[in-house]
Amino acid sequence: MYKLVLIRHGESTWNLENRFTGWTDVDLTPTGVEQAKQAGRLIKDAGLDFDVAYTSMLKRAVWTLWHCLDQMDRTWLPVVHSWRLNERHYGSLQGLNKADIAKQYGDEQLLVWRRSYDTPPPAMEPSDPRSERGDLRYAKMDPEDIPLTECLKDTVARVLPFWEGSVAPAIKLGKRVVIAAHGNSIRALVKYLDGIGDNDIVGVNIPNGIPLVYELDADLKPIKSYYLGDAEAAAKAAAAVASQGKA
Amino acid sequence: MYKLVLIRHGESTWNLENRFTGWTDVDLTPTGVEQAKQAGRLIKDAGLDFDVAYTSMLKRAVWTLWHCLDQMDRTWLPVVHSWRLNERHYGSLQGLNKADIAKQYGDEQLLVWRRSYDTPPPAMEPSDPRSERGDLRYAKMDPEDIPLTECLKDTVARVLPFWEGSVAPAIKLGKRVVIAAHGNSIRALVKYLDGIGDNDIVGVNIPNGIPLVYELDADLKPIKSYYLGDAEAAAKAAAAVASQGKA
Repeated sequence: MYKLVLIRHGESTWNLENRFTGWTDVDLTPTGVEQAKQAGRLIKDAGLDFDVAYTSMLKRAVWTLWHCLDQMDRTWLPVVHSWRLNERHYGSLQGLNKADIAKQYGDEQLLVWRRSYDTPPPAMEPSDPRSERGDLRYAKMDPEDIPLTECLKDTVARVLPFWEGSVAPAIKLGKRVVIAAHGNSIRALVKYLDGIGDNDIVGVNIPNGIPLVYELDADLKPIKSYYLGDAEAAAKAAAAVASQGKA
Repeated sequence: MYKLVLIRHGESTWNLENRFTGWTDVDLTPTGVEQAKQAGRLIKDAGLDFDVAYTSMLKRAVWTLWHCLDQMDRTWLPVVHSWRLNERHYGSLQGLNKADIAKQYGDEQLLVWRRSYDTPPPAMEPSDPRSERGDLRYAKMDPEDIPLTECLKDTVARVLPFWEGSVAPAIKLGKRVVIAAHGNSIRALVKYLDGIGDNDIVGVNIPNGIPLVYELDADLKPIKSYYLGDAEAAAKAAAAVASQGKA
């Protein structure tokens, strides 16, 4: 039996400001730093340990991982970065306030853009100064592969090759894995692992900075999964994610 | 022409307490964190950039690198950890106060242990609770290769294979490299790069947290080297290292 730990980054400055973040590279807030450290303490107290860590190209996930590893006394672990673990690209909504969008377009349209499985928000122009197409960190990618918008279906489509090609083989080699990533790249993994339908994934929300443990069988099918720490706090935090953007 | 940047970690808790640290894994002080951030700002202001970072298995170097990369907006860079970049192992002196040793054994003996090229301090017993032989992070090493003490000659002997096998090939492939490491693993590199004699290396001191830039020719021979920032401050900081442990 294998164990896998998933952690959504701690609170970011734009979580706090209730703005769509996506691929925008914003910092953790002091609360986010504390959440990350607490995640590390919970993992350590649970007796979990890792051989390799995966994270995105975005610093709110990277710093969450770093603080977490530091609390575990594991700052020396190998860390693999991949754009495939980045947050869902929110297209032209990136940087905009969720409540403002709700006021302008209504709660229903906001929910479609936030949670519809296959309807992406309006795309960003490639020439948009917010676009990541000129960003050095993605220089090795085919620029056409850098998204201009994504629905969750698109995110799933680019997360799963990383799971299949990098994470799953490492787990099967006996490596103990932690993934520090984002609300939607983690939802993509959860959807795949738990076999959640396209319509049901809308109801799944991942709280910030609370380690989610999967126990997997030899075929990497989940036996069970649970949040570390106070279950009620995790449920509350997930509900808070769900209610973001109410006008 | 290539550029290589070396950074000794910022001030650690045991630098502050004037204790021999070696392979003991101590934290940065708040001053050390500031030095690391300032190093990142100096590198950024100098227009330098990196493709890959190398560091040790010890968190004072790792955190120095992380803070530095964050200031450069490069938290997504690949980082390679190697025990070969660890500080010199100080044997049974690890944890002891340098001024106390000076009082007990005299300044001259202290200088021999600190700076002699080929006389190591008294070895640690393998059973010493301070020994790193049971430390998980070195689990992949042959336990016999985990030092019980080292003179600088020993440190040079284990740093250079990493230079030859990992760093030099990366530089020749055109990768821009930063190495965040320790006083003596950096002295080992400086000795090798500048062709400094066994007797003359005693006078070379590396200040904490100040980026040292090497400009290298096609054969990786130094054209010139210099500290970033205020030259006088760098010289003062190096002199302070030299005077550590005066009784």
